[in-house]
Amino acid sequence: MKILVLHGPNLNLLGTREPAIYGSLSIESIDLRLQTLAETMGVELETAQSNHEGVIIDYLHQTDADAIVLNAGAFTHYSYAIRDGIAAIKKPVIEVHISNVHARAETWRHTSVISEVCRGFIGGFGVLSYELGLRAAIELAN
Amino acid sequence: MKILVLHGPNLNLLGTREPAIYGSLSIESIDLRLQTLAETMGVELETAQSNHEGVIIDYLHQTDADAIVLNAGAFTHYSYAIRDGIAAIKKPVIEVHISNVHARAETWRHTSVISEVCRGFIGGFGVLSYELGLRAAIELAN
Amino acid sequence: MKILVLHGPNLNLLGTREPAIYGSLSIESIDLRLQTLAETMGVELETAQSNHEGVIIDYLHQTDADAIVLNAGAFTHYSYAIRDGIAAIKKPVIEVHISNVHARAETWRHTSVISEVCRGFIGGFGVLSYELGLRAAIELAN
Amino acid sequence: MKILVLHGPNLNLLGTREPAIYGSLSIESIDLRLQTLAETMGVELETAQSNHEGVIIDYLHQTDADAIVLNAGAFTHYSYAIRDGIAAIKKPVIEVHISNVHARAETWRHTSVISEVCRGFIGGFGVLSYELGLRAAIELAN
Amino acid sequence: MKILVLHGPNLNLLGTREPAIYGSLSIESIDLRLQTLAETMGVELETAQSNHEGVIIDYLHQTDADAIVLNAGAFTHYSYAIRDGIAAIKKPVIEVHISNVHARAETWRHTSVISEVCRGFIGGFGVLSYELGLRAAIELAN
Amino acid sequence: MKILVLHGPNLNLLGTREPAIYGSLSIESIDLRLQTLAETMGVELETAQSNHEGVIIDYLHQTDADAIVLNAGAFTHYSYAIRDGIAAIKKPVIEVHISNVHARAETWRHTSVISEVCRGFIGGFGVLSYELGLRAAIELAN
Amino acid sequence: MKILVLHGPNLNLLGTREPAIYGSLSIESIDLRLQTLAETMGVELETAQSNHEGVIIDYLHQTDADAIVLNAGAFTHYSYAIRDGIAAIKKPVIEVHISNVHARAETWRHTSVISEVCRGFIGGFGVLSYELGLRAAIELAN
Amino acid sequence: MKILVLHGPNLNLLGTREPAIYGSLSIESIDLRLQTLAETMGVELETAQSNHEGVIIDYLHQTDADAIVLNAGAFTHYSYAIRDGIAAIKKPVIEVHISNVHARAETWRHTSVISEVCRGFIGGFGVLSYELGLRAAIELAN
Amino acid sequence: MKILVLHGPNLNLLGTREPAIYGSLSIESIDLRLQTLAETMGVELETAQSNHEGVIIDYLHQTDADAIVLNAGAFTHYSYAIRDGIAAIKKPVIEVHISNVHARAETWRHTSVISEVCRGFIGGFGVLSYELGLRAAIELAN
Amino acid sequence: MKILVLHGPNLNLLGTREPAIYGSLSIESIDLRLQTLAETMGVELETAQSNHEGVIIDYLHQTDADAIVLNAGAFTHYSYAIRDGIAAIKKPVIEVHISNVHARAETWRHTSVISEVCRGFIGGFGVLSYELGLRAAIELAN
Amino acid sequence: MKILVLHGPNLNLLGTREPAIYGSLSIESIDLRLQTLAETMGVELETAQSNHEGVIIDYLHQTDADAIVLNAGAFTHYSYAIRDGIAAIKKPVIEVHISNVHARAETWRHTSVISEVCRGFIGGFGVLSYELGLRAAIELAN
Amino acid sequence: MKILVLHGPNLNLLGTREPAIYGSLSIESIDLRLQTLAETMGVELETAQSNHEGVIIDYLHQTDADAIVLNAGAFTHYSYAIRDGIAAIKKPVIEVHISNVHARAETWRHTSVISEVCRGFIGGFGVLSYELGLRAAIELAN
Repeated sequence: MKILVLHGPNLNLLGTREPAIYGSLSIESIDLRLQTLAETMGVELETAQSNHEGVIIDYLHQTDADAIVLNAGAFTHYSYAIRDGIAAIKKPVIEVHISNVHARAETWRHTSVISEVCRGFIGGFGVLSYELGLRAAIELAN
Repeated sequence: MKILVLHGPNLNLLGTREPAIYGSLSIESIDLRLQTLAETMGVELETAQSNHEGVIIDYLHQTDADAIVLNAGAFTHYSYAIRDGIAAIKKPVIEVHISNVHARAETWRHTSVISEVCRGFIGGFGVLSYELGLRAAIELAN
Repeated sequence: MKILVLHGPNLNLLGTREPAIYGSLSIESIDLRLQTLAETMGVELETAQSNHEGVIIDYLHQTDADAIVLNAGAFTHYSYAIRDGIAAIKKPVIEVHISNVHARAETWRHTSVISEVCRGFIGGFGVLSYELGLRAAIELAN
Repeated sequence: MKILVLHGPNLNLLGTREPAIYGSLSIESIDLRLQTLAETMGVELETAQSNHEGVIIDYLHQTDADAIVLNAGAFTHYSYAIRDGIAAIKKPVIEVHISNVHARAETWRHTSVISEVCRGFIGGFGVLSYELGLRAAIELAN
Repeated sequence: MKILVLHGPNLNLLGTREPAIYGSLSIESIDLRLQTLAETMGVELETAQSNHEGVIIDYLHQTDADAIVLNAGAFTHYSYAIRDGIAAIKKPVIEVHISNVHARAETWRHTSVISEVCRGFIGGFGVLSYELGLRAAIELAN
Repeated sequence: MKILVLHGPNLNLLGTREPAIYGSLSIESIDLRLQTLAETMGVELETAQSNHEGVIIDYLHQTDADAIVLNAGAFTHYSYAIRDGIAAIKKPVIEVHISNVHARAETWRHTSVISEVCRGFIGGFGVLSYELGLRAAIELAN
Repeated sequence: MKILVLHGPNLNLLGTREPAIYGSLSIESIDLRLQTLAETMGVELETAQSNHEGVIIDYLHQTDADAIVLNAGAFTHYSYAIRDGIAAIKKPVIEVHISNVHARAETWRHTSVISEVCRGFIGGFGVLSYELGLRAAIELAN
Repeated sequence: MKILVLHGPNLNLLGTREPAIYGSLSIESIDLRLQTLAETMGVELETAQSNHEGVIIDYLHQTDADAIVLNAGAFTHYSYAIRDGIAAIKKPVIEVHISNVHARAETWRHTSVISEVCRGFIGGFGVLSYELGLRAAIELAN
Repeated sequence: MKILVLHGPNLNLLGTREPAIYGSLSIESIDLRLQTLAETMGVELETAQSNHEGVIIDYLHQTDADAIVLNAGAFTHYSYAIRDGIAAIKKPVIEVHISNVHARAETWRHTSVISEVCRGFIGGFGVLSYELGLRAAIELAN
Repeated sequence: MKILVLHGPNLNLLGTREPAIYGSLSIESIDLRLQTLAETMGVELETAQSNHEGVIIDYLHQTDADAIVLNAGAFTHYSYAIRDGIAAIKKPVIEVHISNVHARAETWRHTSVISEVCRGFIGGFGVLSYELGLRAAIELAN
Repeated sequence: MKILVLHGPNLNLLGTREPAIYGSLSIESIDLRLQTLAETMGVELETAQSNHEGVIIDYLHQTDADAIVLNAGAFTHYSYAIRDGIAAIKKPVIEVHISNVHARAETWRHTSVISEVCRGFIGGFGVLSYELGLRAAIELAN
Repeated sequence: MKILVLHGPNLNLLGTREPAIYGSLSIESIDLRLQTLAETMGVELETAQSNHEGVIIDYLHQTDADAIVLNAGAFTHYSYAIRDGIAAIKKPVIEVHISNVHARAETWRHTSVISEVCRGFIGGFGVLSYELGLRAAIELAN
């Protein structure tokens, strides 16, 4: 079994980007923790990040993973193209967020245009959101 | 460490209630699976269910648990009293849902009035939502 | 065949409560008229009233009636928990109102959150609303 | 006593029109059942149907009936002219619907612009909606 | 010069229809007063009334009047077809109302879909609204 | 009998201000035409203009006129203070506008907060709006 | 095979009505061009126009055509009765518009209440919209 | 004379609940201060608190007090059942809030569904809100 | 200690202005009652009224009072300039209203743009609103 | 003459992507059918697809085609950048959709941000939408 | 060349008013810095401030400056009278703000009713906003 | 000191793109004028343009400039990803627009999703907007 963890725009800056909200772990550290968990669970893990909406869509189309853990970043809130990309493939996609987007001050963060085509959502737990998402993805890919 | 799992209105009917949406597991079976996981993780677990908003609030006020996993059911969408009850206590509360509420046809299910005072949210994975919530609660209670 | 007539909040005050809107019949008189009609129709009738949302839900879950005539009072306009309670059981529920709620000055009375899971609605005819509702319930329970 | 039952647009196609929603009875069969009930109740019954808004208004103005049972069809949702026509006459008008309009998928069906000038409303019971409406009309005309 | 005064739906009931709002003058009396004023002003006057939207449109298309005084009644608030009919002809149309529609309790009366293609509007003065409208029509037709 | 014509903000610039919309007559010319008409009708006329909301209110409170023709200019669209000032006095107030405010491109011009306390409204006829307003004021003051 | 082309309100004035928007072809010329194309395609063509909503509905109910090309004019934007009339018959209906209604200044032209029951829509190409609609109708009727 | 002070949900936690917003006085201390003021004013005082909406309604129905000071807490913002309970009794009810609800960050706190049936409202002054409310209640009960 | 009571637009007409809503006391009588209470409480009182928004702002800027009781009248609902004027000074401002603005028929009266910068609000008690406001101001100025 | 057919995001998956909605033809088959039609019509055809918004814009800027048939996919509903790109060039652009976007369940599909700068729109006919679009493009490019 | 810098309500308190938002410079200091810059640029400068909307309008009407730099303060968000005053004169007006109004917490600050008639807008740079505005005014007056 | 001027989508077509709105200067001419001003001010200037949202974000992340002048074009109105990219870096960003976006006919141009994380905004002055933005950037970078 193979799982793809896909990070969206600005997540390459994790650790230095507004650490009060997003934590002080770099994306490399997060990916490392996920690799460790994946090995424990006995699954293969691929991780990727892009600031380009089109690249995210291409990944969704072309991956050979069995399930996808997706933190779409700000694209979550307006990219109907990514939403359609998720609907177009047949693999389970798990929506994750580092922060509790529903509790953020900006109301536009309270709406996700991709939720309706994802299998489930997890948010607010920092790096733990990804780890729980990985557990869910493995279960759904079974 | 002790965790409280609190089930809101109509969840006592799980298993027979709209199984296409909520699954065929009874609430007793779910609680049993959570007890098993809790023992594995070495934490004490209490579970409760009520159809009464006031009873939910009383539980939140009086529990001696270190963290709470809350499936507020339909109260999620309008009970500002439960929302204020969560804000009034200092313990972490995890919002969980069996179904992917953001993907349901009824738009009022897309809004949660308790999210802004919960630490995080998990939904769409059936009984796994509770299990992931329990893991998150244990981590946050540490 | 058995029918349950369920009265929601503040309906215990019927007769003294804003009689220009709700009429001058007490709840006891209404229940008596319904008992008379039920006997004529050859069905068993149970009636109950509560100001507590949770009690209404418990009644819906636990009744052995074949159909339910429900005047949910003000809960009509916001209780998604009662709405889910109706959806969770398999019995026909008839929504009735004493006044013509769509013609009332308060616009929030124009929206019912329970209509979408009830089988039909009747309103504006005073105690006759209940009697027509009872007739409909008997027909649907057949 | 005389009652007018007035059917609005597209109701001439009852029986063949979307039978899953509107049932398989033709308008002639419905009128026959209503005639039977009217005779039982000892009242005169007139029935009419039109796809023309202006014709509906003319009927309301010119009828010598004591009360009117009106299924305005789609005009229910936008014809302020019919609404004003009901308000302009002094006879009780009962709003009826075959389907449970509040439970239909199209949200525009949830709003009736004529309710505020009708005496009461009944919907969701198929042909029984008309029969209950006829009973209500007779009571109000007394 | 010829002016057409066009009365919309339900205005045939003037005098008996809600006289507290619309006054106690019949439509014949109003037309008579307008004929008198027209003669004083030296213009020919034609008057007509219909409850049918299509008939109103046909009148607009076919009249040989130089200007039109239009009380569209409830069609004012939703008939985009009449609105387009006014725009399609090149003659000045004056929008008049007997009551002060902006001060009425129903908020839908506050919006006119025909105003944007009429030359001006007059309302709230009872039969005087028509008389002022006739004066305006004569001036604009010059 | 005495009539007060009250001009609101920016109307002192009539004639030079956007003449395509407001015409090329100066405020002095308009007042002169109104004086001529007033004399013909045998009534006393006072005219005033101010760019100050408070001055408009003071005029409404202190005038000894029997009726008021008010072009409140842009205050029409937000001055609840002027609205309350009109409601506070017992004299008839006629709302007039030079342009057809409902046909203007800016949607905020389509709403008048003073209409609900004025007796009637006239707009779109240029200086004729004032003349028709003066006629209405005289009739209402009788 | 037979196709019905149905023109809604004000389209009888084509050629003289706002030619900058609707072009300078009369309705007779358009029908002629469509007849020519129909003959080329080997299908029978019937055309009709009405300013009366009820007449449009009657046509939909009674036609023996295999498919319908409908330019509902302003009815497009509010006639739920026509919408229900289309849904009530089983024949494919093609929605066409002469102008690009989505690009028009009036925002109410951007919403069509009939689109959801039509098979497809074509707009913005002048008389070509009808010709493309005729081609589509023939294909769908096959 | 007797006054009832009724505290709604979560107010039992006053003193420990978000003291920056709600102050550091416990509900017992507040009740004590109100008892002292009541004695000074020569009136009898009863106080009660509940997290249960139904219990609040029961109190309103059953109290023998002459006026009621009600801090409905979060129920203020959605409990139409309490709103109807206030309207159903004939005693003056005073709406009080500890914090300035209109200045709170959450916009849902800016709307009260009970204000329209209360005699007046007081908020923002901490425990003083109750004391002013008690003074108002005594005056209104006279 | 000195308190300023500031009356906004149209309040100079108190006693004659819509007495069913605003009571029959003149502004002079109200000020007299407030002076009496102020003397009892041992504080200096200044009162002022203006129909001019700018004058209200100037008062707020220039007063040497320790706290201000402000009935902003209709300015309450739109004057962001007064709102900013309150925020710009450091003195406590108490918002008072004679009528229960939240229970008035006009929905624009339900929103106050100044509440968010006032310390508290009192309304619905007639002249007692001012007296309670004066008590609150004295407490806050301490 | 040369026409560019431009396919937006996720259209590379046509044939396998939700075939109940989008049909079972692959993008290669569609392009082939369009090539055949283009040859019949005697025009040159270029086709392209991209999941990248920026690439779509670059194509619009750089193409040497005389007209463009654009299926912008999900970009239709939010890409103001593509909308501005269309407005910035002088060539006619035809908006096409495979499905009847106005009839889809998701309401965000009912709004197109590019319509106002396209010459016309065609949707709901599957691959025929493209073919009709190609015919329209050729006509407009003449 | 002469430029008028016009400061709106509450700006006379600059320096002491919420310095975290508006800076610690007094209005006199700002005017001095602008005078210095004006001299450098070789233009005459007049500055003025008022809390009175009417006075701002009078300034706009009567100034002999060639261009105007306007910080309308809170009037920016609702004064359609000032908006019309700007449109009524033919001189370029530059809208400036000290703070970044679009980034402020209050959403009503995000809308300017005067922008549509100003030539351009500058905000967020403290006193530099005025200096940039002065440069723009000079350029536009050329 | 180094400043980056970043041009968003479609700005590469400046000069030929809708010159009535955007002016007739090409992007090369604008960059040249900015280079000249930068040299005068003694700062280094880098300029770049892209139609790709992801490229804009990459530039923001990777630039070594001390401040950024950003004309995000149509991305201004929906790219929350760029908004988060600006928030993620610590450098001052100045939002500039060539046209007065608040005065444009399309209402979606009136909302900027990036303003809340930019330091200030300038628009409406053509190329001068950039020059003023450059001056502001230099000041903020100091």
